[in-house]
Amino acid sequence: MARFKSQELRSLVSRLAIADGVSADDAEVFARVLVDADLQGVSTHGVSRLNIYLQRIEKGLIDPKATLGVDRDGGSVLALDAGNGLGQVQAMKALDMLTPLAKQNGIAAATIRNSQHFGALSYYCNRAAEQDMILLAMTNCEPAMSPAGGFQPFFGTNPIAASFPTGKGYSVKIDMATSIIARGNIIVAQKKGQSIPEGWALDPNGEPTTDASQALLGTVLTMAGHKGYALALMIEVLSSVLSGAAIGPEIGSMYKNMDRKQDVGHFFCLLNIAAFLDVADFKRRMDETIDSIKSSKRRPGVDEILIPGERSSRKAAENEAAGIVIPDVTAAELKDLCTRLNVPFDWAEVGN
Amino acid sequence: MARFKSQELRSLVSRLAIADGVSADDAEVFARVLVDADLQGVSTHGVSRLNIYLQRIEKGLIDPKATLGVDRDGGSVLALDAGNGLGQVQAMKALDMLTPLAKQNGIAAATIRNSQHFGALSYYCNRAAEQDMILLAMTNCEPAMSPAGGFQPFFGTNPIAASFPTGKGYSVKIDMATSIIARGNIIVAQKKGQSIPEGWALDPNGEPTTDASQALLGTVLTMAGHKGYALALMIEVLSSVLSGAAIGPEIGSMYKNMDRKQDVGHFFCLLNIAAFLDVADFKRRMDETIDSIKSSKRRPGVDEILIPGERSSRKAAENEAAGIVIPDVTAAELKDLCTRLNVPFDWAEVGN
Repeated sequence: MARFKSQELRSLVSRLAIADGVSADDAEVFARVLVDADLQGVSTHGVSRLNIYLQRIEKGLIDPKATLGVDRDGGSVLALDAGNGLGQVQAMKALDMLTPLAKQNGIAAATIRNSQHFGALSYYCNRAAEQDMILLAMTNCEPAMSPAGGFQPFFGTNPIAASFPTGKGYSVKIDMATSIIARGNIIVAQKKGQSIPEGWALDPNGEPTTDASQALLGTVLTMAGHKGYALALMIEVLSSVLSGAAIGPEIGSMYKNMDRKQDVGHFFCLLNIAAFLDVADFKRRMDETIDSIKSSKRRPGVDEILIPGERSSRKAAENEAAGIVIPDVTAAELKDLCTRLNVPFDWAEVGN
Repeated sequence: MARFKSQELRSLVSRLAIADGVSADDAEVFARVLVDADLQGVSTHGVSRLNIYLQRIEKGLIDPKATLGVDRDGGSVLALDAGNGLGQVQAMKALDMLTPLAKQNGIAAATIRNSQHFGALSYYCNRAAEQDMILLAMTNCEPAMSPAGGFQPFFGTNPIAASFPTGKGYSVKIDMATSIIARGNIIVAQKKGQSIPEGWALDPNGEPTTDASQALLGTVLTMAGHKGYALALMIEVLSSVLSGAAIGPEIGSMYKNMDRKQDVGHFFCLLNIAAFLDVADFKRRMDETIDSIKSSKRRPGVDEILIPGERSSRKAAENEAAGIVIPDVTAAELKDLCTRLNVPFDWAEVGN
């Protein structure tokens, strides 16, 4: 485990993507999205995923040169076809297309079909917030959770996200899966030989389990029972039923299905704050809300009430200054990729 | 407890509202929204609330003749001022204003400030679904829940809702508060002298409690811990920070604060399905999704996997045919209102 500078990581990711046929411009966007997740401390959506994206490109399951197609273009709405390209690249193109529409009409929305796992939603939301806009973003994902009463994976962990600009030096960032817990936590428990709390997962027979191995063979539970089911369904409809992407169990698994594309669907709704009220007023009201929340009474033993986005913003500043911690297994994977794709591995550790 | 015909209930509610100064047209809308909640089995948002709405009108805390003001009108966005009128009436007017905008531009959104508790969000969402549109609706409410780590009521139970048209004879209806449980369940437990499960509420000192009375003096917990907090905050920002309505604890309580207005804020985002894909395709894909969910493997002891909206749609059909069950306490309240406002109480029970 060592720390690496963010710009070196970005440069490496970009060069590896270019080596697999991605254009220089697209590779730059792709690298930014991945490394931003590492900066924010969400390493599950960062460079640890580079290997699988590139493998899928090499197997013809992701088109590194895909353009973003427009199925329908009506008023302030776009129905887009990602052409099975890199989700990160197509999502940023979609956001760029929505921005002038939202500036003109106050609001704009896009569905994106035929896409992939595209990393952390909050990346796109934060970019919108920097432009004094609010992006409400949703996506479906490969099946992991069942409807309430069932035990067959149907929904992905279908996340919903939005970011809001403030005058505090960071955006309030909502970004949450609709599962009770990230599957990654169950994998960690299994690796450590630990049990998991009841209420996290069902075994392959549909019975509650505290055995991490059984849980990984079964289904993760939705957050808050039937409420999580309802929310996951809402996200599935907006991301997939409305977009024309694969629905529920039809979505390909990024790791397991190395023989077919994913066909993930996304939903973006972009609001121009200035169409509703003055941006300065909005930020002042956000800051007052933050101050009011942070100064409210704390439960015994709680030192500070955190605002969603506050912790990851501190983490990003820390990682930008001190370098990003890359676990040995990911560093080794990156080194292997460099060897295989004939890309120089010339970056230096910045210390532990 | 007896059953009453929905049209008689609507007529009664309407006449009582008119007696308190609401126009005939507005009273009709108001009655439709209230009685629809009773039809769907959500009696907490039905005629049981009539008494408090009328009391607040009589005390000058709700303006029965308010018009819907437009603060900003830009492209496909409206920033609206409910003028402290009845929330139900103003929300339907807002939906009517958004509909042609969404037809023209594919999407339209409105914020509504200076409003009240306006009943079940799903009423408005279902009306949109009947027009082959998707209404994503949110509202804040009087303080009940604290941010994660706190124990001072800040957020309301801030619900989010959306309905989706299908070919199945009912709309898929998502309508959920972001609290772990409706406060009503705690009130019921208190009345029955029962304890509540751990994880529902904190006592006035911020400690977890299973004592219903202590819970009612304290705060209800958000669903799924910090995720519910994040979602409640997102809904607060879109409904209130963006609209100019009161934020968090500044919102007046409908029952406790009989000396000031509520100033609730709502957020509506209306999507025209036809702008994204053919409506027939959308409904076919919805139906396939429903069939796939309903036929997925059921957990031991589960007879049927329900789709959100399925149960309340069955309940509404049953109540439309057999009459709506009105508890004695609500019937007595309606009778008292009739006496006080000099409205004939001439409706007949349809049997038990």
